[in-house]
Amino acid sequence: MAEKTLNDLFLDTLKDIYYAEKQIVKNLPKMAKAATSPELKAGFEQHLEETEAQVERLEQVFEMIGKPARGKTCEAILGIIEEGKEIMTEFKGTQALDAGLASSAQAIEHYEIARYGTLKSWAQQLGLTEAVTLLDQTLQEEIATDKKLTQVAEANANQKAA
Amino acid sequence: MAEKTLNDLFLDTLKDIYYAEKQIVKNLPKMAKAATSPELKAGFEQHLEETEAQVERLEQVFEMIGKPARGKTCEAILGIIEEGKEIMTEFKGTQALDAGLASSAQAIEHYEIARYGTLKSWAQQLGLTEAVTLLDQTLQEEIATDKKLTQVAEANANQKAA
Repeated sequence: MAEKTLNDLFLDTLKDIYYAEKQIVKNLPKMAKAATSPELKAGFEQHLEETEAQVERLEQVFEMIGKPARGKTCEAILGIIEEGKEIMTEFKGTQALDAGLASSAQAIEHYEIARYGTLKSWAQQLGLTEAVTLLDQTLQEEIATDKKLTQVAEANANQKAA
Repeated sequence: MAEKTLNDLFLDTLKDIYYAEKQIVKNLPKMAKAATSPELKAGFEQHLEETEAQVERLEQVFEMIGKPARGKTCEAILGIIEEGKEIMTEFKGTQALDAGLASSAQAIEHYEIARYGTLKSWAQQLGLTEAVTLLDQTLQEEIATDKKLTQVAEANANQKAA
């Protein structure tokens, strides 16, 4: 068997984030439904559309490297989403719910920022120029979403919760 | 029963990251042992010392709010660490191992950046000025560690792996 290389790591991590994005697509409508502030609700709805486009970008990257688009169970995102669900249950009906939802969403964003940052850097190393562009596009969206969540939380949710 | 507030969210998340930091303290020596580049190995060893000080800072925050320092199982960090262990096993003995280790460490850092960012913001909202200082100190260390990991990976591990 040939020694594993950066190509294998790249494919493994691509599968990991592909699975994660699909879980996020399933989870965002629940977060939007739970959010009480119209601003946070709208933010989750908008990010759902963005996430669907991010899934398509990943499918393009799979195509570029000649591999079928397949996910691989990502324990990390399952754990992060599970913690978010606990908050939704424990803080349901309280003024602190939105602050908790924004916090969960930021943990998700940071997982994605880590993975897309790595994938972009590996794509550069592997000379996958077009993949770099696609991965960077998503990375910038995740960074922007994280910043927006901080703003929404600090302008509204945290004050309401306190 | 009184309605849950931001104080409860703050305490919940403090317990979450306290548990997470203790798992990281257990995990870092394994990552340092696995790393092949002396630079990455030294980075993990240094971050272990830093993490031990971060645990102590959390204990100070628990004391400030008059609560016992207790962790609460954090499924997110368990998932992130589990994925790192898979990489250690699957890429053991290959040139791609260090790139994989650096990537796992960055996923851990980003989880911490998300949680400390939230905790700092909530501490501000709750008027816990001294806690803000401690949480921000750790937050800045995590951001610096993440940047250093990007540098180590891009200067060395990724090239070796490709």
